[in-house]
Amino acid sequence: MNNLIELEKMIDDKQFKLLRTGITEVNPADIAALIEELPIEKGVVLFRVLPKDMASDVFANLFHGIQQALIERLSAKDIYEIMEELFLDDAVDFIEEMPAIIAKKVLAHVTSETRELINQLLKYPENSAGSIMTVEYVDLKRHLTVAQAFERIRKIGIDKETIYTCYVTDSERILMGVVSVKTLLLSEPDEIVGDIMDTSIIFTNTDTDREEVVLLFDKYDLINIPVMDSESRLVGIITVDDIIDVVQEEATEDFEKMAAMSPSDKPYLKTSIGRLARNRITWLVFMMVAAMVTGSILDKFEVAISVMPLLVVFIPMLMGTGGNAGSQSSTMIIRGMALMEITPKDFVKIVWKEMRVGLLVGTILSAINFIRVLITYNSNPDIVLICLTVSAALLFTVVLANVVGGILPIIAKKCRIDPAVMAAPLITTIVDALSLVVYFSIATVMLRI
Amino acid sequence: MNNLIELEKMIDDKQFKLLRTGITEVNPADIAALIEELPIEKGVVLFRVLPKDMASDVFANLFHGIQQALIERLSAKDIYEIMEELFLDDAVDFIEEMPAIIAKKVLAHVTSETRELINQLLKYPENSAGSIMTVEYVDLKRHLTVAQAFERIRKIGIDKETIYTCYVTDSERILMGVVSVKTLLLSEPDEIVGDIMDTSIIFTNTDTDREEVVLLFDKYDLINIPVMDSESRLVGIITVDDIIDVVQEEATEDFEKMAAMSPSDKPYLKTSIGRLARNRITWLVFMMVAAMVTGSILDKFEVAISVMPLLVVFIPMLMGTGGNAGSQSSTMIIRGMALMEITPKDFVKIVWKEMRVGLLVGTILSAINFIRVLITYNSNPDIVLICLTVSAALLFTVVLANVVGGILPIIAKKCRIDPAVMAAPLITTIVDALSLVVYFSIATVMLRI
Repeated sequence: MNNLIELEKMIDDKQFKLLRTGITEVNPADIAALIEELPIEKGVVLFRVLPKDMASDVFANLFHGIQQALIERLSAKDIYEIMEELFLDDAVDFIEEMPAIIAKKVLAHVTSETRELINQLLKYPENSAGSIMTVEYVDLKRHLTVAQAFERIRKIGIDKETIYTCYVTDSERILMGVVSVKTLLLSEPDEIVGDIMDTSIIFTNTDTDREEVVLLFDKYDLINIPVMDSESRLVGIITVDDIIDVVQEEATEDFEKMAAMSPSDKPYLKTSIGRLARNRITWLVFMMVAAMVTGSILDKFEVAISVMPLLVVFIPMLMGTGGNAGSQSSTMIIRGMALMEITPKDFVKIVWKEMRVGLLVGTILSAINFIRVLITYNSNPDIVLICLTVSAALLFTVVLANVVGGILPIIAKKCRIDPAVMAAPLITTIVDALSLVVYFSIATVMLRI
Repeated sequence: MNNLIELEKMIDDKQFKLLRTGITEVNPADIAALIEELPIEKGVVLFRVLPKDMASDVFANLFHGIQQALIERLSAKDIYEIMEELFLDDAVDFIEEMPAIIAKKVLAHVTSETRELINQLLKYPENSAGSIMTVEYVDLKRHLTVAQAFERIRKIGIDKETIYTCYVTDSERILMGVVSVKTLLLSEPDEIVGDIMDTSIIFTNTDTDREEVVLLFDKYDLINIPVMDSESRLVGIITVDDIIDVVQEEATEDFEKMAAMSPSDKPYLKTSIGRLARNRITWLVFMMVAAMVTGSILDKFEVAISVMPLLVVFIPMLMGTGGNAGSQSSTMIIRGMALMEITPKDFVKIVWKEMRVGLLVGTILSAINFIRVLITYNSNPDIVLICLTVSAALLFTVVLANVVGGILPIIAKKCRIDPAVMAAPLITTIVDALSLVVYFSIATVMLRI
């Protein structure tokens, strides 16, 4: 059944019954992958033979582009059925990504209750806990017995995204405690939920940043977390499967930002040339202009260069090494801050640490460099002075680069700029300029030019 | 109770009873954080007042350094109790990180059964599915009724890391199917497990790379996955809490590798100066030597430089922009491969895509550059030729950088080298050299020098 050609043939031959029998064995995530591989018209055919309960699972797993193409081709009844079966967080995620006209069309085809719930969830800011939560959880009352709790879980559990953690609320929807199905199973049927529930609850708020929610899952080994509104009422839960998506997405975004790109929301191969170029051009222009300014520092040292053209030979090495050292330290700090291992109050510790690492690393590099230059250019009459100049400049540059790389992300954080965004562009720019100034300043003094 | 000073005072005053009452309300992960903040001797005191079942949870949450310090200070009986209570995957993770002498000491204090299980798990290669799995799962037989299944879960579930997915095995430990507690709860008590279990099982093998396991969790929204040996026998399970750790660790490692560092296993602030320097120095030396070679390309063009020193001014801009463009494209490809959105068979697609993106981006950059140089150096008699030279070199460099950045990670993958490792060092090195050669080749032709 995983064979795409076989599948296409079945669709072409209109063997729908065979298709339906075969496809129900396949995991919804795999069916979604098959639909994405097929030409869209055949994808629609495959999608329409799916049993109703499976169709929504498959739908949730499709790329947004394919979701849109499907919606444009499905009947009002089909749309209604998918949307009502979808988990609310998936429905919201989907509606968010659709053009307004499609979103409107879809929302016109659902029950008013679903529509209201979706609209409510749509209000939460992007990347907040509220935007990734679902309202499909099991709630219990504290006076229930374990047996009654199981009865309730059996009754309402089928449509819930998870049943394994149940939330005990009062009549005001204030969260009193949580109780896991494991605890319920290990308790006697006549015990009272209020007596066995856990009251030290790890929770989050609707407006908490989703990256912070990830850290809660990570720290407390959660499989879901309750989300409260500003009045401590339980409004939803976040399940761990969405958290893995968030971790991957946030890491991808940081990779892109740190390589001086605007983050993209589609996989590389599905992103158009124009979009890729647009994501890259802004920072490239900025850095190019910055590098021009850096280059024009060389204008000022034209005399020195014409007196001793050999000086030019070491520029790529100096700027390159400085840039590398700076991006090493900034990467450590930015990642550390993303994982909340480092906070702005560690400022002094970081400067002190980076200075020492810079001195250690810089000394080794300078020594290697000294020997190498000495060997290569030993015919030059000023060779020792040149060696000293280059090595001293290198040591200074590396220490400066490390400190700047350590400090900049923290300053960014303080100024409420994303540290990852400013990493590549600013650090290279600053370190490049610094290294040239340091180099030629030392050179003019040492070589008396 | 979260107040550190208050806590230290209680320890100093030996108010152990008060301490124990207060601490049981606190989450184990938070207690671990408190112990890490305390001086180790006080940390030991706090740890020793913990109730037994809590102590192992707290222990699993501590940094390896603190774990070791504790073990060195605890009695044989304490060690025995902790180790027997620990989940096996946590125990293995801990033993792996300890110096041999500590590991031996610990293993000498556990039951022979635990020792055997730990030793078995220790054999799996680092970063494999086997190395992060646990053997504490619930297994069922297919002929059981739902009621009998619940009985078994109640009996053996308390020590299992998860009970929510049960694994149905035959007498040879071959995995026949899986059944969730949700399915069991929604079934009648007299239904047979074999009839309601799911037989289309998503599984992994002991030697599968843990990054691939992450992708399975991601794709199929799993909360745990069964792990099979080479004879299709069920040997363990991996739970989702460990997967979040893996995702974070792998992303951190890739960040470090892409910034040309050896990955570290400790948080930045806990890593020593020496270790930080060692992680950074290797690639810095490599890239420095490479940059020297690049620099010596300039030797060959010494004549050109002395005829027209202005040419030097544009070197930082050219090399910088090339490097930035190259790292943009390589980052996209490396991240895409890590998420398995891109495979080596997309080679041609990528080259074609990067070439077009490079042309688009390069043209814009060249145009901006042309105008800027024209304005700044309009007093120079050869200004138009210089503008053309620099702009043409820039366009070539950007296209080359994009293509190289796109190809290199794929070649690395083909050669079974980690694409992230070769990203920063090789791409900068190659692009820098290429850009200089392109620049001066164009310059010598255009400017006839």
